[in-house]
Amino acid sequence: MSDRRPIVVLLTADGVEPPADLDAMARIAEIRTATDGTLADALPGADVLLVWDIFSDALSRAWHAADALRWVHVAAAGVDAILFDGLRSSSVRVTNARGVFDEPIAEYVLACILAHDKLLHETEEFRREERWVHRETRRVAGRRALVVGTGGIGRATARLLRRVGLQVRGAGRRPREDDPDFGVVVDSADLAAHLTDVDHLVMVAPLTETTRGMLGAGQLATLPDGAHVVNVGRGALVDQSALTAEIAAGRLSAHLDVLDTEPLPADDPLWTLPGAHISPHMSGDVIGWRGTLSDQFLGMLTDYAAGRDPGPAVDKQRGYVPGR
Amino acid sequence: MSDRRPIVVLLTADGVEPPADLDAMARIAEIRTATDGTLADALPGADVLLVWDIFSDALSRAWHAADALRWVHVAAAGVDAILFDGLRSSSVRVTNARGVFDEPIAEYVLACILAHDKLLHETEEFRREERWVHRETRRVAGRRALVVGTGGIGRATARLLRRVGLQVRGAGRRPREDDPDFGVVVDSADLAAHLTDVDHLVMVAPLTETTRGMLGAGQLATLPDGAHVVNVGRGALVDQSALTAEIAAGRLSAHLDVLDTEPLPADDPLWTLPGAHISPHMSGDVIGWRGTLSDQFLGMLTDYAAGRDPGPAVDKQRGYVPGR
Repeated sequence: MSDRRPIVVLLTADGVEPPADLDAMARIAEIRTATDGTLADALPGADVLLVWDIFSDALSRAWHAADALRWVHVAAAGVDAILFDGLRSSSVRVTNARGVFDEPIAEYVLACILAHDKLLHETEEFRREERWVHRETRRVAGRRALVVGTGGIGRATARLLRRVGLQVRGAGRRPREDDPDFGVVVDSADLAAHLTDVDHLVMVAPLTETTRGMLGAGQLATLPDGAHVVNVGRGALVDQSALTAEIAAGRLSAHLDVLDTEPLPADDPLWTLPGAHISPHMSGDVIGWRGTLSDQFLGMLTDYAAGRDPGPAVDKQRGYVPGR
Repeated sequence: MSDRRPIVVLLTADGVEPPADLDAMARIAEIRTATDGTLADALPGADVLLVWDIFSDALSRAWHAADALRWVHVAAAGVDAILFDGLRSSSVRVTNARGVFDEPIAEYVLACILAHDKLLHETEEFRREERWVHRETRRVAGRRALVVGTGGIGRATARLLRRVGLQVRGAGRRPREDDPDFGVVVDSADLAAHLTDVDHLVMVAPLTETTRGMLGAGQLATLPDGAHVVNVGRGALVDQSALTAEIAAGRLSAHLDVLDTEPLPADDPLWTLPGAHISPHMSGDVIGWRGTLSDQFLGMLTDYAAGRDPGPAVDKQRGYVPGR
């Protein structure tokens, strides 16, 4: 690390609130603000890229201008939008907003599971029709959940669901039977073999070439009648048209916080199908989340500027930060 | 206890499924089935009344015919509908469906709290309008809940909410600071003094002359803006018109599983007010609940017929089974 202050490019977009700690960052580094269209102009000489507009993939197009880049931080849990071959094969370090979303998303998943088992959405539909229709609900204790994805969010989800009494297993790359959070982790490469006794299937894996489409028509068909899918990972983990068909048939229902195309297009049947509960990619975004993301980067930048390690790096081949 | 088999009157109603264990009960006792209109004819000589139609108050009108009655079992948690002065001053023992609803209702309360903090109902409204509107939700960990009622259901609720990370206090007749489930229990006779810092107010007290209207306009006014009321106890615990006014003003919101009049009348504003989420008295009714109630009474009847204590009695002056 040289004595000069690092140069940080803040990649943002119109209408996105800037980091709350921008002034503090500017005391440590020279800050250049860019958007998709100006990124190539801002990158020459820059050491660090802060991807604050987390849906941007502009770096792949401005990559030729990244002549001094050493570190890219993505202010999100998933880094799928930013990765491309040039970045993967470079020595540029990639970090993510590790930990920030773990507990908020775990709570959101629990909310979806309870809403399903206690029939809250159906009760609201009856209320809208001004109909008083008593029905029996389910105990949530004892229900069987499979959490696909064993990173920080999956682990926080497993711990919370277990505290409420659900039976929880995980699905990941490395099967095992003694995981501290999941107990049993089944092989996510052989998902269909582990879905026949699942009541609540929680998708929270990172999107990589391995996980893309991992919940396809064949896997969905092995879920029991009445099973409930919660997707808080990425839309492309799931074959959305196959899931739509299962929901339309009344066999499955789902809470989908992420979708193939966001916002969901106007003519998509998921807007109106009974049993489909879509939400606009907000499961982890609790009040103050942008401040937390800003604080996290400020801390990492402080470490970087002092020559210390800014935090765990994404394995760019795998597409996520590997566990211990 | 004499050698003759006890006579049990089953008080039911048209359309109510009979107890699953009726045949087993008939091996222990003579069973007479009655409805509101025939109760007076069935009671003479009967030892036991099983109130299976839990909304019935027919016993007060047929009381003159209860010439041998020793025990009334109500297949519900709350016994308010059955109690009247003649029964209170008699030596007839009253029991309730103690424990059956504790965990199911605790789960339902948690579902309501999470639906509120994660904006699930609002998200469904946007979905119905096919609008993609990102919003920030709340962390539920750290939120402040006050559970009014320290019986079995209140205790199960407190334990579950604490496991999910809420800060929980109780409100009951006997204030204390070392309760195993609540930690602090504040004085329910002075409720208004303890509502200023409550995010989620859970009403689960039994309905008695002391608790009727305990959450009145004055108490409601002390709740902070944005507070959320969950009523799974009895409608009459709350001044329903005062609560309706607070919801109409947008200051409070509520999940109400119980109401002054059930079913809720057709013209009631609670059907349509944003922020009012009514449900048809179903919070504890999980799949199999009637079987559990039947099994519970069969076990108690078996004890009774053998001369053993059938289980903890309701304090008929107070209107509930007192804690230890």
